[in-house]
Amino acid sequence: MKNFFVTKSRRIRSTPFSKRIENQGVKSYTVYNHMLLPTTFSTPEEEYEHLKKNVQIWDVSVQREIEIIGNDASKLMQLMTCRDISKAKVGSCYYAPIVDTEGRILNDPLIYKLSEDKWRVCIADSDVIFFIKGILASKNLNVKVFEANIDTLAVQGPKSFKIMEKVFGSKINELKFFKFDYFDFENKRYLISRSGFSKQGGFEIHVEDLQSGLDLYDHFFKIGKEFDLKPGCPNQIERIEGGLLSYGNDMDINDNPLECGFDKYVNLDTDIMFLGKQSLIKIKKDGIKKKLMGVKVDMKSIFLTESLPMTSNDKRIGELRSGAFSPKFNKVVGIAMVNKEFCNIKQTFQIQIDNNKFLGEICNLPID
Amino acid sequence: MKNFFVTKSRRIRSTPFSKRIENQGVKSYTVYNHMLLPTTFSTPEEEYEHLKKNVQIWDVSVQREIEIIGNDASKLMQLMTCRDISKAKVGSCYYAPIVDTEGRILNDPLIYKLSEDKWRVCIADSDVIFFIKGILASKNLNVKVFEANIDTLAVQGPKSFKIMEKVFGSKINELKFFKFDYFDFENKRYLISRSGFSKQGGFEIHVEDLQSGLDLYDHFFKIGKEFDLKPGCPNQIERIEGGLLSYGNDMDINDNPLECGFDKYVNLDTDIMFLGKQSLIKIKKDGIKKKLMGVKVDMKSIFLTESLPMTSNDKRIGELRSGAFSPKFNKVVGIAMVNKEFCNIKQTFQIQIDNNKFLGEICNLPID
Repeated sequence: MKNFFVTKSRRIRSTPFSKRIENQGVKSYTVYNHMLLPTTFSTPEEEYEHLKKNVQIWDVSVQREIEIIGNDASKLMQLMTCRDISKAKVGSCYYAPIVDTEGRILNDPLIYKLSEDKWRVCIADSDVIFFIKGILASKNLNVKVFEANIDTLAVQGPKSFKIMEKVFGSKINELKFFKFDYFDFENKRYLISRSGFSKQGGFEIHVEDLQSGLDLYDHFFKIGKEFDLKPGCPNQIERIEGGLLSYGNDMDINDNPLECGFDKYVNLDTDIMFLGKQSLIKIKKDGIKKKLMGVKVDMKSIFLTESLPMTSNDKRIGELRSGAFSPKFNKVVGIAMVNKEFCNIKQTFQIQIDNNKFLGEICNLPID
Repeated sequence: MKNFFVTKSRRIRSTPFSKRIENQGVKSYTVYNHMLLPTTFSTPEEEYEHLKKNVQIWDVSVQREIEIIGNDASKLMQLMTCRDISKAKVGSCYYAPIVDTEGRILNDPLIYKLSEDKWRVCIADSDVIFFIKGILASKNLNVKVFEANIDTLAVQGPKSFKIMEKVFGSKINELKFFKFDYFDFENKRYLISRSGFSKQGGFEIHVEDLQSGLDLYDHFFKIGKEFDLKPGCPNQIERIEGGLLSYGNDMDINDNPLECGFDKYVNLDTDIMFLGKQSLIKIKKDGIKKKLMGVKVDMKSIFLTESLPMTSNDKRIGELRSGAFSPKFNKVVGIAMVNKEFCNIKQTFQIQIDNNKFLGEICNLPID
């Protein structure tokens, strides 16, 4: 596996925290929403073990926030998602797949209801604002839509609760999962949600004022030693084991939410109006033909650069889309899109890399 | 300037040619349309000199192609662009900025008219298909739209004409600038356009059949020695000197085509219907407030990671968006968005990097 450098530019720009994490030893990046996202500081395995025991701060500024403001904000938000948000509450976040008229997934954001006429859409890696601009070209909706100037720090890991309490006070730990509220540090107010792209618990701090965000970042590392705080990033091993899907890796514009196991976020029986409704009703009636499943493969490492065909008796039965070596299972774990008739636990398959064949089996998601 | 590795994955996938260019010594990548684009093989300066004298093949598969097919294909295409395409001819390519209802640029593709009811949109780095999906959510247009399975090889440089003739026959050199036609090699047909992201002349070969594309690539290098053929990539120095704009670097969703000097592609006086027309009429009437200009800066190197403020007498007068050291001018050349009142040739300014200040001056684009 050869390594290649990333060439920086404004088109795939740095974040306000890039200089700090580069001084802290970041080794590699990926690009996400036209911005740099750190991917390794030491090794994925070391970071995995550390995340499961301690606390990390992640620069996830790439998780751009689209703000929708106006009388029709909720109407527009509902048009885009197959999840019923008619009873959504201010102060709550909702995982809400965005689908087109064919019922295909364009993004899988966490959406924040800030008020009756204000939503924030914290997006995965695709230009959702282009979809909105297209919708608004014809529909006369009273909304203002823009990418907000917000950069996010995730505080993740079992010790996140203690370090957050030390910075923001004990009230922070009254915040329930997928709720958000406003908390002060040094006379600056932050919107903080109990959320994040790991299963180890934690928070996301939405930074609107750049300088205070940098000061906050430095403060965390000043007091972080007692919690063994380290800079980190979403961990591929941990998120695959936990079944946290990554848009563009595990699913994309060619897949629908029923194929991704999002059944409980596909609300077809209420009278909500969303663009993909008729298509998804038909897809549900006809039955899906492929589904995302967990896999385990007898390998000690894997580096995917595109999807990899899975075969059984020389017949293609699906494709592996994400994978990582798991210290817990002592083999590679992954997420695969599998033809429906082969979506059976313990179904075996082969994958081929160069001239080597490896044996795998289908399992549940999260991996068990 | 520290270097960082890129972490590959399906979300920022490799191209069919990646293995070949990695064997040929590619050193670095950027990410473009969720795919890897090579950025260096040796040094930008060496590649610049080579490109201006010889011929290079570039893997520009990242230039994804959106296909629009159906009775309303031209109507949809026109809705999206401010350029009048009512007299467009089959067999021609058109540089056609795509704008939203506010007249802001979403992409600056080269569009190919394949037939009266078929267009191909060769996109710069943004999810244009999302904009189309939004438009189609309300407008009842008879079109099918999808990202085609096409990967592009650019053959660029003064010797491109000779090497292309050797491969495809002398008819290839009857092709005029921004025209395309079909040419055969070993019983496979390729759509080839006289186009490409350099000012040194050349072609783009649109590969639909993967294996024959790989064979073609190998054939080029088998016969390439007499032309001093090398693998290459869009060259930052050459494209800035030539005034070729890069979407996401030089302009983006916050800019309009008049600010980018695209006046001749903003056709407001005909009766064409496009989404941003009313906004652009108003913008033109009111006058633009900023404009893209060339700059020269007294520096020997520059590595931009985001836009950089330009000041004159401590007042912000614009921002530098792209830059590279030019051997020709023996200083850094760049592209900047400048407040209208400072868009004067020889207007001086300062930029600051870390604690060092550098002096620059505004010039024309292409750089002169």
